[in-house]
Parts: sequence; C-alpha cells; structure tokens
Amino acid sequence: MFERREYFTCGFAIVGMLATAVVAAGDPLPSWNDGNAKSALVSFVERVTKTGGESFVAAPERIAVFDNDGTLWSEQPLYFQLAFAIDRVKALAPSHPEWKTKQPFKAALDGDLESVFSGGEHAILELIMATHAGTTTDEFAAIVEQWATTAKHPRFDRLYVECIYQPMLEVLEYLRANGFKTFIVSGGGIEFMRPWSERVYGIPPEYVIGSSVKTKLESRQGGPVLVRLPEIDFIDDKAGKPVGINRHIGRRPLAAFGNSDGDLQMLQWTAAGDGPRFMMFVHHTDAEREWAYDRESAIGHFDQGLDEARRRGWTVVDMKRDWKVVYPFDR
Amino acid sequence: MFERREYFTCGFAIVGMLATAVVAAGDPLPSWNDGNAKSALVSFVERVTKTGGESFVAAPERIAVFDNDGTLWSEQPLYFQLAFAIDRVKALAPSHPEWKTKQPFKAALDGDLESVFSGGEHAILELIMATHAGTTTDEFAAIVEQWATTAKHPRFDRLYVECIYQPMLEVLEYLRANGFKTFIVSGGGIEFMRPWSERVYGIPPEYVIGSSVKTKLESRQGGPVLVRLPEIDFIDDKAGKPVGINRHIGRRPLAAFGNSDGDLQMLQWTAAGDGPRFMMFVHHTDAEREWAYDRESAIGHFDQGLDEARRRGWTVVDMKRDWKVVYPFDR
Repeated sequence: MFERREYFTCGFAIVGMLATAVVAAGDPLPSWNDGNAKSALVSFVERVTKTGGESFVAAPERIAVFDNDGTLWSEQPLYFQLAFAIDRVKALAPSHPEWKTKQPFKAALDGDLESVFSGGEHAILELIMATHAGTTTDEFAAIVEQWATTAKHPRFDRLYVECIYQPMLEVLEYLRANGFKTFIVSGGGIEFMRPWSERVYGIPPEYVIGSSVKTKLESRQGGPVLVRLPEIDFIDDKAGKPVGINRHIGRRPLAAFGNSDGDLQMLQWTAAGDGPRFMMFVHHTDAEREWAYDRESAIGHFDQGLDEARRRGWTVVDMKRDWKVVYPFDR
Repeated sequence: MFERREYFTCGFAIVGMLATAVVAAGDPLPSWNDGNAKSALVSFVERVTKTGGESFVAAPERIAVFDNDGTLWSEQPLYFQLAFAIDRVKALAPSHPEWKTKQPFKAALDGDLESVFSGGEHAILELIMATHAGTTTDEFAAIVEQWATTAKHPRFDRLYVECIYQPMLEVLEYLRANGFKTFIVSGGGIEFMRPWSERVYGIPPEYVIGSSVKTKLESRQGGPVLVRLPEIDFIDDKAGKPVGINRHIGRRPLAAFGNSDGDLQMLQWTAAGDGPRFMMFVHHTDAEREWAYDRESAIGHFDQGLDEARRRGWTVVDMKRDWKVVYPFDR
C-alpha cells in the first residue's frame, strides 16, 4: 500500500489541479464559444433546475452520464487503455519469453500497432486479458496509477490523463454546481478508470461504470483479497450501456454525453424518459488541435449516431467551431 | 408512468417522514442506550473525522456499508422479499392455473410456508424467478412500489417498510452528517430495494447493491425498454459481498454493518483495510419487541460471525440491551 500512496501523491502534484479551477467567474463554460451547443445545454439546465417551473426535476433525479473515450478524453491514435495494455506487455515480457514469437504479443512488443489491430477483437481481448488479470484489485489499481502518473501521449508529450477536454471538464463542473450527479459510462475498463477519475474529472470511483472482468474473493496470509480473473464479466458498450446504467445507477439519466455509435443506445435510453432530456454528441472535427474522424473511423465510429442526432435534434458539438480550447494545457 | 408516480406520492404520504427527523438535538443517537456499542461507534467516527488527527480519513473515502435484512429492517418470520414473492404468486395466479397443483406455487397460494421452505433453495429460486422476471424494469419498480406502500407485516399490522430499525436510521443519519456515504449491500434483490430505499433510509438507488437478474435492452413501439430475464446475474451474499462492493463502489469500506454469517466476508474485507475500521453485527436478542435468534436459525444464521466478532473485538449490538426502541412506530 505504501507504493500506491506514493503514486497518488505524485499524481496529485502533477495533475491535481485539473478537475478544480475550471470555472471562471461569471460564465461557467468559458471554453465554449457561444453557439447552439452551449445555449442548448444552458437552457436545458435552467429548465430542469428552476424551482416551481413546469420542467423542474428534484436534485436526486438529476443524473448525467458521460462516455469517456472520445467524450471526456482523446481516443486517438488508439484507445489509451490499449496503450496501457501494450506498455504492460513490455513490462511483463521478461517473464513471458514466448511472447517474442507469439502474436499479438510480438506485434505489441515491436510497437507494430497495425498487426495488433489486424488480429481483430480477439487479439485485443487477448492483450487485455494477459495484462489486466491475475493481480489483486489493489495491485491492479497501483499499476494503473503508476501508469497514469508517468505514461505520456506520443503526439503531445503530455500525460494521457492530461489529454482530457477542458470544455467537458467545465460541463462536469457546471452540472455538479447545479445539483447533478455526474457518472462515467464507458466501454473502457472500470478499474482502469477508477484510480484517477476523481482527481482528474472530480468523479469518484462509485460513479464510474465500465467493462469489467470477474473477480474472486481469496483468503491469503495477509487477509482476504479480490483476484482479477481472465474472464469477461460485463461489456459496457452499445446495448450494454443502458444495462450498466440500470445496474449501477437504477435511475434513467436526464442527460447523456457521447461521441460514437457505441453511445447511441445510451442516448436513446436517456431520450426515452419523460419530460426534458438532454442528449449531446461530441463530433471530432478538429484535425489541427485534436483529430477529425467519424463515419469511416474504426475508433470512435460515428455514423448512425450522427444521423439520428440530426434527425431528432440532439446537440452535436462541432469541436473545431464550438471549443475555444481543447486541452487544459492549451490554455 | 402515471401509476408509478401515484404510488410514489402515496408512499411519501405514508412513510415519507421516516428517514428524516430521526436526529434529536444534541445526541445524534437518541434511541441507543449508553454502552459499548454506542461508544465504540461514536469514538470511531470522531477518530476518522478529526481534521489533522492521526487517523483522519478524507470524506470521499468515508464509505459505510449496511446489510439490509436483519440489519436495517426485520427479516422474520420470513425475508420480506419472500413475502413479496408470495403476494405476487397470488396476484399472478389467475393467469397460471397450473400453479394450483404445482409446487412450490401451490404451497405459496395455500400460505403453507413450511412446504415452501421444504423445497429448499431451488423452490425459493423458482418462486423468485416466476415473480421477479418477465417485466420491464419500469414495470417491476411500479409493482414493488405498490407492494411497499400497501403490504403489511402480519405481526405488527404495519407496512413492511415501517418495520425498520429506528436506531439504525439514526446511525445512517449520523454517519452521513459526518461525511460518510452510506450504501446498502444486501443479498436481497437490488431492484426490490431501490424503489423505496431513498425515502425510507435516505439511501439513493445508486448506493444500493444487491442480487440481480440479467436484463436485456429491447426496442418496443414506445421506445427502448430493459426486460428482466429469468436468469441470475449476481448473488450479493457471503463471498459475493466484497465482489459487489468492489464492482459498485470501487473502494474498501471504512465501516460495515451486518447481522449474520452472510455478512461475515463483508466485515472481514472491511477489517482487512489499513488504519481504523469499524465492524458491527446486530445480534437479535429481543424476542419480545422483535425476535431472538442466531446460531440455530435458518434465516439470519449467525454463528461463525458471532464467534469471530467476539474473538476480534468487533462491536456486537445486543438489541434488547442496547436499543431503547426497535421500530419508529414504537416511539
């Protein structure tokens, strides 16, 4: 546990200020240009929080759910959790001499992402299971925490946990200031996000929902531990997102934020509730400051969702046009 | 949805005041007699909340977990959820003529609990699946809510949701007033507790952890629904409790409250954390005001847990001696 504390301290020193200090006096969304996206959000929040108003919603029911990859932080050139998995393959390689010749591990060790991807979902799953299981939950949290406080994004030379969207941090803070509970509902691993979600996003572990492996209680000499098994427990993506929301929250969200077709069912589930609901997609349109991708992209594939958002009048953020800055370090 | 709202309103009118108004000015635990149990709890809370103190724990880490059956409300003469299941069998019987001759349904319809129990876990599971699956999650919540606002306990002629422990309501309120987040971690059904947990205990749905069936997203004419499947997803009991805590909370509790061997692993898991932790068992010793049972009882079996609590110096509440009143309606 000593090591883990150190990581925490280190993490605080480096990125501890990100989640706070995002709200300028006056405008709670200073990194947003005035436009449809910003005004739709503000007008929704004002409607549901106006005491005595027709659309008033009591604070306990103010649930907002956020996808993570591509919605709160970047997901290019590959999902950050996959970067973590590849870093883990490298770290574990000395105990796995067979990986030198066995795919997808060989490709991961060679940094040959294309070959990793060519193995499809099966290869990715194999990488994840080999690097995300076998430890206790405490050990895994410490490994994630060390990675989160040291591993850097190749394009920006910044920690991955700094490659988060300043405008979305402001949305999180703005909603919480208006009595909302803000949840992450991500296809990513629940225990990959929890070690840093509170200090980076202000979202505590119990408000993080994600994909998971099974765990098993074991008695060891130092006491009981939970061991992470190489077996999928739950995939929190697509039709799994409403299932995960129901499982963890037990209430239908008032507002949902995503960026890809993997979030479509979550937004549909939110929209199907009574009264006013708010659905927003972040559209990646900014190749210069971030990336531009949608219908043709394997990562963050955004096609049906874009059509449905336009047809139903949901809010679509044009990153290039709507955001004054992308990352906190741009300011 | 209209019906559900009516139930809620009705519920508020009947039992809405239970969760509030429990703390008398001055003593936050007025229904507790002075004694070891009360002083152990107060001294623990003072230690972990004293700013600058050696044992200080930051508010986000102040997690307290409570078993429900036998810890927050009664569980005799049978688990209240089983009473609900039997009431559902009666309500559904007209569409199931075969139940008149088929066990365990016949026994349930005849009110012959002994025969129901003689079928063992398999019979109970069959009753639960026949009465807890097949609806949407919204429909099930409305059914539970109607039951919770009408069904009465045979011994007290009070709503089941009134047969909750006044001293434990005070503990919940006291912990929350000291920055704790209070969670239910029950072997009971998660969606059986969520419709009423907030107004009865002040515990919102997202802080309720329990056993569950699988659900599946379905498109229907009115929009997407989640359908409850007749298939167990998770059993939140015994070794499942630490698993459920990790799955839903992602942090180790500081304090854990139970009453039976089904809670032992939860208390062991809590005790295995660093620094001060608080473990409490409610011992049912009051045949006059409630029930007296422990080592020999099938419901709320409390044997190994009692031995371990005594050996390790955990707090054991003697209901008869420690509690001035049992139920809110006793006051």
